[in-house]
Amino acid sequence: MNVTDALKRVLVGRKLASAQLGETLLPKRIALPVFASDALSSVAYAPDEIILTLSLAGVAGFVFSWQIAIVVAVVMAVVVLSYRQTVHAYPSGGGDFEVATVNLGPNAGLTVASALLVDYILTVAVSVSSGVQNAKALFPFMVGHEGIIAAVIILILMGLNLRGARESGTVFAIPTYGFMFAVLGMIVVGMVRIFVVGEPLAAPTAGFDVVGDTYYSQLTGFALIALLARAFSSGSAALTGVEAISNGVPAFKEPKSRNAATTLALLGVVAISMLTGIIALANLTGAKMVDEHAGVYFTQGGVRVTDHQETIMAQLAATVFDGFPLGFIFVIAMTMIILFLAANTAFNGFPVLSSILARHGFLPKALSTRGDRLAYSNGIILLALAAVGLVLAFNASVTALIQLYVVGVFVSFTVSQLGMLRHWTRHLATEVDPAKRRHMKRSRVINAIGLTFTGTVLIIVLASKFIYGAYLAILAMAVLFVVMKLISRHYQQVERETALSPSDVRLLPSRVHAVVLVTDLDKPAMRAVTFARASRANSLEAVTVAAEDDHTKDIRQQWEALDPGIPLKIIASPYREVVGPFVRYIKGISSGNPRDVVMVYVPELVVGHWWERLLHNQTSLLIKARLAFVRGVITAAVPYQLASSRYAIDRVVRRERAAWRHPGTGTVHSGSNQGE
Amino acid sequence: MNVTDALKRVLVGRKLASAQLGETLLPKRIALPVFASDALSSVAYAPDEIILTLSLAGVAGFVFSWQIAIVVAVVMAVVVLSYRQTVHAYPSGGGDFEVATVNLGPNAGLTVASALLVDYILTVAVSVSSGVQNAKALFPFMVGHEGIIAAVIILILMGLNLRGARESGTVFAIPTYGFMFAVLGMIVVGMVRIFVVGEPLAAPTAGFDVVGDTYYSQLTGFALIALLARAFSSGSAALTGVEAISNGVPAFKEPKSRNAATTLALLGVVAISMLTGIIALANLTGAKMVDEHAGVYFTQGGVRVTDHQETIMAQLAATVFDGFPLGFIFVIAMTMIILFLAANTAFNGFPVLSSILARHGFLPKALSTRGDRLAYSNGIILLALAAVGLVLAFNASVTALIQLYVVGVFVSFTVSQLGMLRHWTRHLATEVDPAKRRHMKRSRVINAIGLTFTGTVLIIVLASKFIYGAYLAILAMAVLFVVMKLISRHYQQVERETALSPSDVRLLPSRVHAVVLVTDLDKPAMRAVTFARASRANSLEAVTVAAEDDHTKDIRQQWEALDPGIPLKIIASPYREVVGPFVRYIKGISSGNPRDVVMVYVPELVVGHWWERLLHNQTSLLIKARLAFVRGVITAAVPYQLASSRYAIDRVVRRERAAWRHPGTGTVHSGSNQGE
Repeated sequence: MNVTDALKRVLVGRKLASAQLGETLLPKRIALPVFASDALSSVAYAPDEIILTLSLAGVAGFVFSWQIAIVVAVVMAVVVLSYRQTVHAYPSGGGDFEVATVNLGPNAGLTVASALLVDYILTVAVSVSSGVQNAKALFPFMVGHEGIIAAVIILILMGLNLRGARESGTVFAIPTYGFMFAVLGMIVVGMVRIFVVGEPLAAPTAGFDVVGDTYYSQLTGFALIALLARAFSSGSAALTGVEAISNGVPAFKEPKSRNAATTLALLGVVAISMLTGIIALANLTGAKMVDEHAGVYFTQGGVRVTDHQETIMAQLAATVFDGFPLGFIFVIAMTMIILFLAANTAFNGFPVLSSILARHGFLPKALSTRGDRLAYSNGIILLALAAVGLVLAFNASVTALIQLYVVGVFVSFTVSQLGMLRHWTRHLATEVDPAKRRHMKRSRVINAIGLTFTGTVLIIVLASKFIYGAYLAILAMAVLFVVMKLISRHYQQVERETALSPSDVRLLPSRVHAVVLVTDLDKPAMRAVTFARASRANSLEAVTVAAEDDHTKDIRQQWEALDPGIPLKIIASPYREVVGPFVRYIKGISSGNPRDVVMVYVPELVVGHWWERLLHNQTSLLIKARLAFVRGVITAAVPYQLASSRYAIDRVVRRERAAWRHPGTGTVHSGSNQGE
Repeated sequence: MNVTDALKRVLVGRKLASAQLGETLLPKRIALPVFASDALSSVAYAPDEIILTLSLAGVAGFVFSWQIAIVVAVVMAVVVLSYRQTVHAYPSGGGDFEVATVNLGPNAGLTVASALLVDYILTVAVSVSSGVQNAKALFPFMVGHEGIIAAVIILILMGLNLRGARESGTVFAIPTYGFMFAVLGMIVVGMVRIFVVGEPLAAPTAGFDVVGDTYYSQLTGFALIALLARAFSSGSAALTGVEAISNGVPAFKEPKSRNAATTLALLGVVAISMLTGIIALANLTGAKMVDEHAGVYFTQGGVRVTDHQETIMAQLAATVFDGFPLGFIFVIAMTMIILFLAANTAFNGFPVLSSILARHGFLPKALSTRGDRLAYSNGIILLALAAVGLVLAFNASVTALIQLYVVGVFVSFTVSQLGMLRHWTRHLATEVDPAKRRHMKRSRVINAIGLTFTGTVLIIVLASKFIYGAYLAILAMAVLFVVMKLISRHYQQVERETALSPSDVRLLPSRVHAVVLVTDLDKPAMRAVTFARASRANSLEAVTVAAEDDHTKDIRQQWEALDPGIPLKIIASPYREVVGPFVRYIKGISSGNPRDVVMVYVPELVVGHWWERLLHNQTSLLIKARLAFVRGVITAAVPYQLASSRYAIDRVVRRERAAWRHPGTGTVHSGSNQGE
C-alpha cells in the first residue's frame, strides 16, 4: 500500500462515512472559513512582531515596517500561487507530506512530517498566547497571569476535542467572516476618517518615545540588515496556515481542485489586504510596540511608561472606534475567537497527521485509527500537553514563541516546493501532448519561483533567529525525525521476526493443562473454577499459595465443604509471597510438558472507577506479566463484574451516543447493543 | 486475625526467614546503632532550631537556650521511661500503632498510623535537608542549590533501597558510634580547652550582633512565653526516633524486652548528653544562628554579614578543632552520614508500616507483601516522591520543615501513652498477684506522667507552630486518615459483594465457544489459533475485522492457502475500526447463548523494554478492557515472545540473584528455575 492510497483512504474514507450521516461536500463560501482560520488569524500577531522587532532600532526603526509588510505580502502571493499548483497536482489532499514522500522519498516526507508536527504544537501555543494577549484589552485582570491562562485555555480546547465536539462549517464561518469584517471594516473606517474626514487619528502610543538597549540604533550596514531580516522573519508568521487548503481538497465540491485553487487565491487576497492594511494604519496612527524583553521601553515626557503593552490590533481598534466602544469590543472579541479557532484546527490536524504516520509505522500504532477514537484522543492529549509545556515555559509570550514558529513552516514549504519541481520534471519526461507540456512547464516555473522564495526565507529565518530560539525548533524536529526512524525500524524488525512460515500452522499442542489460581474463596474464584471446568482440559486443578497459614487453612476447609469438583493444590511459600511460588509452579508444569499448553485461569474484579483499579487485581496483574514470558502458557482473565462496573459501562454508552450525535470523530457509531 | 497476630507474623516471619539465611538476633551493642541513628541524628539540628528561634528576641534571647535544652532533656527522659513500659508490655514490636489499636480501637490506631506515615516522610525530608546544611561546611559549592541537592540525595537513597541493598548491623554501627564519638569527643575537648586549659574559645559568630525584625525583643509576658514555646517545640525535634526501639523488640537477643529496655535507656543517656553538651558549648563559645526568613540577621561592626550561616555543629567543630582540620572534617562527615542514615531508616519503616496497613485493608493491597518485593518498592517510591516534593517546596530549609515535623511525633506519643494507661488499667482489673499489681501500678504512674508530658508538649507544639506550618501536617494526617477509612470501607463492601453462596459452585456453563482474533496473519496469530484448536471448544472460529480492504483480502487469501483447520470469519467495519465491531460481535455470541462461555484468544507480543510496550498490543489491551465488562466472556492472552523479551527475563534473573545475595528484602529467594 503506497502513501497516496493510504492518504486517500484516510481522508476520502472519513468523508464517505460522514457523507452517509448527511454531511455534504463544502461549497467555497464554507470551505474558506473552515480552512482559512489558521492563516487569517496570524495577521493578529504578525504586524505586532514586525513592529516590536523594529523597536530595537529606536523610533527610527518603525519607518521600515511598511516595506517589510510589502515583502511579506509578495512572499505570501508567491506561496499562494505555488500551492495552487499543488492543489491541482495532488487532489487527494495529502499536502506537503504526500508531495515530499512521493517525489523526494520517505526521508523528505519524514522531514516534512517532523516539521508539521512541531508546527501544530507551536500553532496552538502561539495562537492561544496571542488570543490571551488580545483578550487583556477586554479583561485587564489577566495581566501577569498569561502563562497559566493560556494553559487553561489549551486544556479546555483539549477537553472539547476529547469529547468529540467537532465543529461544523457554520461554527467556523461566523467568526471567520466576523473577523474579516471586523478587521477590514476597521481598516476602511480608519482610512476614511484619516483621508476623507481628515481627522488626525493618533494611537495611544503615538506620542511615546522609544529608549533603552537599542543596540541596532546606528542603523548601518550589517546591523541594519540583520534587524530587518529578523523583523521580516517574524512577519513571515503571517504565512502559516496557507498550506491548510492543500490538505483539504477532497472536502471541496466538484470541481474539487479548481474550487480549492480559487479559495486559496481568495484567502491570499484577504490575508494580504489585512496585513498591509493593519501595518498602514499603524504607520498612520503612530501605533507602536517595543521589545521589553530586549530592554527597550516606552517613555513619555522622559518618564518610563510602565503600563502593560496593548497589541497593535487593540490600539488600532481603540483609535479607530474611539467614540464607539461596541466596535472596539467586536474587533477584539473576533480576534480572540479566531485565534482560539486557529488553535483548534491544530487539534484536528495533529491527530490526523499522527494517525497517518502511525499507519506507516513511524509512530506508535496507538496513534493510528485502528484503535478507534482512543487513537485520536492520544494525539489530542499529546498535542495539548506539548503546547501547555510551551506556554508555561515561555509564559505565553508571543514574541518568544514566534522565534521557534516560522522555521517549521518554511522547512515544509521549501521541501514541498522542491517536491513539486521534481513532480513536474518527472511528468514532463513522459508527457507528449504539447498543450499539457506547456501547462506543466508553466507550473514548474511557478514552483521554481516558489522554491527560490521559500528557500531564501528559510535561510533568512534560520540565520536571523537561530540563536533566538529557532535552534529549539530545529532540535525538536531532528529528535522527532530520529525517533520516527527508530520506531519504523523496530516495527519492520518485529514484522520480519513474526513472519509466518508454513510449519507454524501444523504444530498442534498435544494436551491442555488447566490451572485455576485461588487466592480467596469467593464468587470471582468460583466463577473461574466453573469456567475452567466447562473447558474440558486434559488435566484440571485449583492452586492456592500458602502465604498466610490461617487463611490457607480456611480455604482448604471451605473447599472440602463446598466440593467444587476439582482438586485444590496448596503450594508452600516460605516468604509469604504469592506471585513467585505460583509462577515457579506453572513453569514447572510447562517445562515438564514442553509440547503441551498450560492454561492459567486468573479471577479478576471488574470495577467502574479509576481509583478502584488502584485497589484491586495487583496480584493478578503481576502473575499475568510474569507468565507472559513463559512459552506455552496462556493466562485467561476470568472477569467478575462488581456492581460498580455499571458506571464504566454507562460511560461507554454515553460516549458512543455522543459520537452518534457528533459524527466524524472516529468513534463507534452504533448506540445500540451496548453495555450488557 | 487480630492486629497483634498480624504484626507478629510480619515481624517475626521476616526474622525467621532471615534467620534461615544465617542472620542472628542483635546484641545490644549492635541494636543501639541500628535503632538509634534516627533519634541521635536529630541532635544535629534540634540545637540549631532552638537557638535560631531565640534569635527573634535579639542577642538577649540566646540566654534562654540552656533552660530550653534542660526542659527538652527532661521530656526526653520521661518519654524514654514511658517507652520502656511499652517495650515490656508489647514485645511483639508493633509499637505505637499496635498499642493504640489494641487499647483504644481502630480509629486511634489509624490516627497513629496517619501520624507515623506523615512522620516518616518528614524524617526523610528533614534529615536529608539537615545533612545538606551540614555538608555545606565541607562543600561550599552547594550553597544556593540545597533543594535540588537534597532531592537528588533522596532519589539516590530510593535507588539503593529499590535495589534491595539493605544495611547489616555493621553498616549502622560504624557511623553511629563514629557520630557519638565525634560529638561527645568534641564536647569533651571543648570543655577541657575552656575549663582546664583556660583558652577563651570563641565561635565565628561570637562577635556578631543580631538585628532586624526582632519583634519579640520586649521579652515580656505573653510574647516571651510564646517565643520560648516555639523554641521548645523546635527543640523537641530531638525526641523524634525515640520510639524506634519499641518497633524492633523481636530483633533483640533474649531476654528481648529487657535488652530493648536497656538499649532504650542507653539511647536516652547518650542523646541527652549530646543535646545538653552542644547547647552548653554553644553558650560558652558564643556560637549562634539567626532566623533569616523571619527578617533577623547578623551584623558585625554595624555592617550586615551576608555569608551563608554555618550550622551550630559546624561552628563548634571549627572552634574546638581550630588547629586540627581533621577533627573538623570528622565531625561534619559523621554528622552528614548519620543524617542520611536516619533518612534511610524511614525507607525501611515506611514500607513495613504501609504493608501492615495494606494487610488490614487500610491501604491498597499493592502495598502489602503478598505481591513480593514490588509491594515494598511501591512504598519506597511513594515515600521518596513525597519527600522530594517537600524538600523542593521548602527548598530544603530545616527551619521551615521542622514546623511540620514535631506534631506527628507527639500525636503518636500521646495516643500511645493513653493506650498504655488503658492497657495497665485493663490488666489491673483481672490481675490478682499483689507483686504484679504493684509493678503494674508503678508502670501506670510512669505512663500517666508520660501522657501528661507528651500531651502538654503536643498542645504547646500545636499552639506555637500551628500557623507556621503545623497545620499542613495536621491536614495531611487528616486526609490520610479519611482516605484509609474510605479504602477500608470499599474493601469490606467488595468482600460482602463477592462472598460465596453454595449455588455458585453448582452453576456450570453448558458450552464453550472459542474465538481467535486475527488482525495480522503472523506467527503470534497462528500460535493463538493452534492453542485454541488444542482446547477442543464446542465451537471454534477465527475472526478478522475488515478495517482495510486490501489487508483483509490478503489475510483471506493467505488463510485459504495455509488452511489452518478452522473457519475465518470476516466482520464488516464501515468506520475502519477494529475494537468496536469485534466487541459487538463477541457480545452478540454471548447474549445469544447466556449459559455458555465465550473464550476469546487474543495474540500478544511479549517485549523486553518499556518503550517497546508503547509500540505494541494497543488493540489487544483495548479489546481486553472492553470485554471485561461482558458477562460470560473470558479473554485469554496468547503471548508470543519476541527475541527482545530475553532482556526482561535476564533482568528478573539478575534481580532475583541480587535478592539472594541481600536477603531480607522480601524478594523471591530462589535463583534456580528462572527464565525459561
